[in-house]
Amino acid sequence: MARAWYLKSRPKGMPTLDNFDLRPLPLPPLEPGMVRVRNLWLSVDPYMRPRMTEAKSYVAPYALDAPLDGGAVGEVVESKADGFSPGDLVSHRFGWRDEAAAPAEAFTKLPASGLPPQAYLNTLGIIGATAYFGLLRVAEAKAGETVFVSAAAGAVGSTVVQIAKVKGMRVIGSAGGPEKCALVRELGADAAIDYKSPGLLADKLEAVAPEGIDVYFDNVGGEHLDAALAQAREGARFAICGMIGAYNSTEPVALRNLFRIIAARIRIQGFLVSDFRDRFGEFQRDMGQWIAQGRTSGSETVMDGLEAMPAAFLALFSGRNTGKMLVRL
Amino acid sequence: MARAWYLKSRPKGMPTLDNFDLRPLPLPPLEPGMVRVRNLWLSVDPYMRPRMTEAKSYVAPYALDAPLDGGAVGEVVESKADGFSPGDLVSHRFGWRDEAAAPAEAFTKLPASGLPPQAYLNTLGIIGATAYFGLLRVAEAKAGETVFVSAAAGAVGSTVVQIAKVKGMRVIGSAGGPEKCALVRELGADAAIDYKSPGLLADKLEAVAPEGIDVYFDNVGGEHLDAALAQAREGARFAICGMIGAYNSTEPVALRNLFRIIAARIRIQGFLVSDFRDRFGEFQRDMGQWIAQGRTSGSETVMDGLEAMPAAFLALFSGRNTGKMLVRL
Repeated sequence: MARAWYLKSRPKGMPTLDNFDLRPLPLPPLEPGMVRVRNLWLSVDPYMRPRMTEAKSYVAPYALDAPLDGGAVGEVVESKADGFSPGDLVSHRFGWRDEAAAPAEAFTKLPASGLPPQAYLNTLGIIGATAYFGLLRVAEAKAGETVFVSAAAGAVGSTVVQIAKVKGMRVIGSAGGPEKCALVRELGADAAIDYKSPGLLADKLEAVAPEGIDVYFDNVGGEHLDAALAQAREGARFAICGMIGAYNSTEPVALRNLFRIIAARIRIQGFLVSDFRDRFGEFQRDMGQWIAQGRTSGSETVMDGLEAMPAAFLALFSGRNTGKMLVRL
Repeated sequence: MARAWYLKSRPKGMPTLDNFDLRPLPLPPLEPGMVRVRNLWLSVDPYMRPRMTEAKSYVAPYALDAPLDGGAVGEVVESKADGFSPGDLVSHRFGWRDEAAAPAEAFTKLPASGLPPQAYLNTLGIIGATAYFGLLRVAEAKAGETVFVSAAAGAVGSTVVQIAKVKGMRVIGSAGGPEKCALVRELGADAAIDYKSPGLLADKLEAVAPEGIDVYFDNVGGEHLDAALAQAREGARFAICGMIGAYNSTEPVALRNLFRIIAARIRIQGFLVSDFRDRFGEFQRDMGQWIAQGRTSGSETVMDGLEAMPAAFLALFSGRNTGKMLVRL
C-alpha cells in the first residue's frame, strides 16, 4: 500500500509535526494511458508554507485531510502509456508520498544528461529557474552591477550567487553563521554577511557595499529588505522571490527605509517562476551549459525516508539546510 | 528690503513654527543678464519636509540659516536681460520669499494661456506632471482598469482622479472626512473612501472594489499602502509618489500584506517627476487641452501673505488643504 503525508490541521505561526499525518494512500487502478511511479526524491520548499493556510493566493491552498503535493522525481514501475517504460526517470508534482499513479501527461521524462536525478528538483528545476529568471529577467541584473542576495546559502540563493558570477556581477550574499558564510564565499560571492552576528544588517551591508547595491534578490523579507532599501542605489531593482521570515509570523513587517523607494526610484517586483514557463528552454540550455562547464553546481541537504518529510520541511524555517533540502526514499 | 523664510532648526518629527524664521534677504545688485521678480504666488509641498532633514536624498537638504526655496510665480519688476520686460509673468524656484534677483536662465516666462498664473504651480506645473507621469507612465494605467489613489482631495491626488477619468479608468479615491470625500466624487471618482471613518481601510477598499485594484497611486504610504497590497489584482502596478504619513514619523512602516507582492506579482515603483523632465512637452500639450475642454481643473487652498508660509506648510500634514496649497502675496 502506498503512503502519503496528509495535512491534518492548518498551522498557526510555525508549523509543528502535529500538523501532518502519514496515512495509507489508495492508488487508482492503472487504466490505459496511465503510469505508476515509485518516488526516489521528494522536495520540500518554503512556498509550501503559505499553501497550508486558507488564504487568497496564486494557487489553491492544500486541502485538509488530503495528501500534500510538491515536486518529486521517481522511476516508472508500471506503464500503460506510450513512451513510458519501467525504469524511466520522471519528474512530477506528486510529492509527499512514496508512489503515484496518474495519466502520463502528469510526468516529464528526465533527459539523459548524466546528472543525478535530484538535479531536476534543484539547479535544473524550479529552484534554478527561479534564480535565473528572478535575477536576469525580473531584476534585470547586468554585468558590473552589485547584487545582494539573502538566504545565499539556501537553494535559490546559492544558485543566484553562482549565476551572478557567471554573468560578471559583484555579489554579496547573506547567511546565518560563519559556516554558511564560508559556503557562500566558496560559491563565488565577493562578500558574505552573517546576519546572525551582532550589529545592524544595514551597517554590515554598507561596509561591504559602500557604493550601494543595484539589485536585491529577496528570499526572506523583513530586516533584509529594509537593509536593501537603505543601501539601494538610484534605479535599483528588487526581485521579491520569497519572504520566508514572514511565512510563520503573525506580526506585520516593519520597514524603516521604505521612503527611500521614492528618492532612489527603486522598483520592487514580486514574481513566480511559473510566469516564465514559456521560457524554460532558454533557462535549461544556459544552465545545462554552465553545469557542464563546472561554473554552477547544486548543493543539497538530504534527509532519508518518507517519515522524514515533515521534519525536513520544518528545517527550512530554522535555517538548518544549506542548498536544496531534499528527502531521499 | 526683501524678506525670506530661513530654516532656523531641523525639525524632529512634525515641524513647528519655531523651525522657521522670517529674516531680511539682501538681494544682489542687478548685473547685465539678470532679472528682478516680485513674487505673487508661493508653493508649499510635502517634498519639502524630507529636505529639512539632513539625510541621504535625491536633492541636497536645505541648509540651516539659509533661505528656503521652492516653486513660485512672480512678475518681473526690473530686467537687464533680453526677452524679459517688467510685467512679464514667470515661474521659478525662488519661493519662500517676496522678491528674487537672479540670472534670467533661472526664470521661465509663462505662456499667454489665459489661465490664472498659479495654475503653473498646480495642474500645469509639477503637480500636474507628477499625476500625469505617475499614473500613465510609472503605473502604466490603462482604460478600463481600476485605480486607487490616496490623498485624493490633495493637489496631486485630485489631478490623478481627473486624468484617470479622462482616460476611461474606474477611480477610487481616499480622503479624510465627508466633505473631502464629496469633493473627490465631484472630481469624477466612482467611489470615495473616508479613511477617518471607523473600520479597516482594506475592508472599505474591498467594499468598493470587490474585484480588486489594478493600479495604486500612493501619496501617503502606511495603512493605505497596506490596504492596496491586500486588494491588488494580479499584475498590479503601484506608483509611489509620496509617503506623507512617514515624513514626520520616527516609527517604522508596518505592513501586514507585503507578502502579497509575490502571489499577485505586484510591481512597486518609486518615482520623481524630475525623471520625466524631457517629456514635459507631451504633458503640457495634453493637460492644456483637457483644461481647455473643461475636463480637468485645479482646485486650491489659499493662504495670504508671506507671514503665512510656515503655517501653510504645516497645514499640509494635518490635511487642512483640499487641492493645491498656495500662499498669495
